[in-house]
Amino acid sequence: MHSFDWLQEKLNRIFASVKIDSQPKELYSPIDYTLSLGGKRIRPLLVLTGCDLYGGDPDNVINIAIGIELFHNFTLLHDDIMDQAPIRRGKATVYKKWNTNVAILSGDTMFALATGYISQTKETVLAEVLKVFTLTAKQVCEGQQYDMNFETQENVSIPEYISMIRLKTAVLIACSLRLGAIVAGAPAKEKNMISEFGENLGLAFQLQDDLLDTFGEENKFGKEIGGDIISKKKTFLHVKAMELANGRQKEELNRYLSSPTIPPDEKIRKVKDLYRILNIEEIAKATIRDYFDKALQCLAHLNVEEDDKKEVHEFANRLLIREY
Amino acid sequence: MHSFDWLQEKLNRIFASVKIDSQPKELYSPIDYTLSLGGKRIRPLLVLTGCDLYGGDPDNVINIAIGIELFHNFTLLHDDIMDQAPIRRGKATVYKKWNTNVAILSGDTMFALATGYISQTKETVLAEVLKVFTLTAKQVCEGQQYDMNFETQENVSIPEYISMIRLKTAVLIACSLRLGAIVAGAPAKEKNMISEFGENLGLAFQLQDDLLDTFGEENKFGKEIGGDIISKKKTFLHVKAMELANGRQKEELNRYLSSPTIPPDEKIRKVKDLYRILNIEEIAKATIRDYFDKALQCLAHLNVEEDDKKEVHEFANRLLIREY
Repeated sequence: MHSFDWLQEKLNRIFASVKIDSQPKELYSPIDYTLSLGGKRIRPLLVLTGCDLYGGDPDNVINIAIGIELFHNFTLLHDDIMDQAPIRRGKATVYKKWNTNVAILSGDTMFALATGYISQTKETVLAEVLKVFTLTAKQVCEGQQYDMNFETQENVSIPEYISMIRLKTAVLIACSLRLGAIVAGAPAKEKNMISEFGENLGLAFQLQDDLLDTFGEENKFGKEIGGDIISKKKTFLHVKAMELANGRQKEELNRYLSSPTIPPDEKIRKVKDLYRILNIEEIAKATIRDYFDKALQCLAHLNVEEDDKKEVHEFANRLLIREY
Repeated sequence: MHSFDWLQEKLNRIFASVKIDSQPKELYSPIDYTLSLGGKRIRPLLVLTGCDLYGGDPDNVINIAIGIELFHNFTLLHDDIMDQAPIRRGKATVYKKWNTNVAILSGDTMFALATGYISQTKETVLAEVLKVFTLTAKQVCEGQQYDMNFETQENVSIPEYISMIRLKTAVLIACSLRLGAIVAGAPAKEKNMISEFGENLGLAFQLQDDLLDTFGEENKFGKEIGGDIISKKKTFLHVKAMELANGRQKEELNRYLSSPTIPPDEKIRKVKDLYRILNIEEIAKATIRDYFDKALQCLAHLNVEEDDKKEVHEFANRLLIREY
C-alpha cells in the first residue's frame, strides 16, 4: 500500500478542491466554515486505507471519503446543539456562531450531500456500500441517543457504556475501513475482519479520549483538561468509579460533581484524587490496551502484505497516542 | 394502470406493516408517533403512480415509497422546530411533545432510514435513483432556508417566492413521480416530462394551500383559517398584495400584521378586506390555474395510455381541491 503520508497528502488536495454550492449563503456558509476547520480527517483516511490495503485504486473511493467526512461533520453540528457545546476545534460551534436553526438545516444539508457523494460509487458495489453506510448512520444516531439518555440515567453500567461508544464512535471507524475494502473487492471474511479491527480501534480511541480529558496534558490533548468532570459527563472513568466506589465514596463523588460552589480547579482535583484512590487511570489504560490488542489481533488475521500490516499498526499507534 | 383506490389500498397495507426498530425508545417512539399520524401519503402514492404508469410493477418501488414518506416526515420534524409549530395533523409536534433534541435526532434517524429504504432498489437503476433523491433532498433544505430568510427579508418578489416553494415543496412531488418512472424503465424524455408535471402540480398545490389558509372553509381545509396572517407568513397572497398595494395600503397592511393589540379575528378580517380590494383571491386562483394547466399540458405529452392520463388528471383535480 501507499504510505499514510502519501494518502494524507492526497486527501489534503481532495479537500482543498471540494466544491460545495454557495446559495443560499445562510445554508452553505456554515458548511464551508465547518469544513475549513479541518480536523484530522481520520475517517476519510481510513476509507482510502481500506481500499489501498486490498489493492484498490484510492481514486475509486474519493467520493466515499468526502461523503464520510461530510457525514461525520453533520453529526458534530447536531451533537453540538444537543450537548450545548460552544467550542469545537478551537472555534465557535455553528449553533453558537449562527443559531440553532442554521445548525439543524446546514447539518441536514451535509447529510444529503454526504449521501450524494457516497452514491457516486461504481454500480457493482453501490448497493452494498449504501447498505453499510445507512446502517452505520442509523447506529450513530442511536449512540448519540444513549449518550443523552445517560445524562439523566442514574446507574450506567460498563457494558452499557461500551455499547454506547461502539454505536456513537466505533461503528463509523469500522464503516470507513469496510467501505474502502468493499470498493477494492475484498472477500467477505476480510471485510468483516477489517471492520472488527476498526471497531476495536474506535473503542480504544474513544476510551483514550475519556482518559486524556481527565489525565492528559493540555498542550498535547488540545482541549482543556477536566472538561468532562465539569460537565458531569458519564465517561468510562466516571462509570468505572461509580462501579468500584463504596457508599461513602459514591456520595462524595456525586457531591463534588454536583456542587455549585466548589471552584472548577478544586472540583477537578478532588475528583481526580478519588479516581486515583480507586485506581481508575490504570484500569482505563488496561481496558484501552485490551481493545487495542483485539484490534491488533484482527489486523494480524488480515490477508494483506505483512509490511502493510506494520504500516497500519504504526498508524494506529500514532492515532491512539495522539501523535497523528 | 391500477386505479388510485387500488394503489392507495396497497399503500395502507404497506405502511401498516412497516417495522421500524424500537430501541432506544427515546429515538424510535417519536418516529412511530409521526408515522402513526398518517397524513395523506401523497408522495409515496406518486412513486407508485410513476412506476405503474410506465408498466412497472408497483411492488418494485415499495421501498422507495416508504423511503420518500420517511424523508418527507423527517423534513416536517425539523421544520416544526425551526418554525416553532406546536400542532401538525391535529396533534402536538414532536419537538413540543418531547423536546428539541429528540426532534433533531429522531429526524436525523428518519433521514438515515429513508436512505436505507431507497437504497433497496434494483441495482441497474440504483445510481440514478440516488442521484435524483439526494439532489432533491438538498433542494428541499435550500427551500426551507429561503422560507426562513423571507421572515426577515423586507421585500420578497413573486419570482423569489415561486422559486422557494419550487424547492421546498414541488421538487419532492416531481422526484416521487420520477423515481417511479426510473424503476419502470421509462425513457429520459418521459422522466423529464413526468417530473415537470409533478413540479407544476406541486406549485399549484402549494399556492392552493396559501389560498385556502386565508380564504378556505375551516371544516374542509382542516386547519384554522387565517393562521398565515396571524403568524405574518410571507405567502403568495402577502407577496402579491405588497407588490400591488400603494404606499398607504402597504403601510396599512404592515400595521395590521404587526399590531400586538388588534384581536386575531379583526386582524384576519382587516387583512382579507385589503386583499379583496387588491383582488388577491382572483389573482391567486388564476396563478394556480396557470400552473395546473402547465401540469396538464405535461400530462398530455406523456407517452402513456389516454385512459391513464384521465385517471391521473382526475386524481390531480381531487388533490388540488382537497377532496383527496
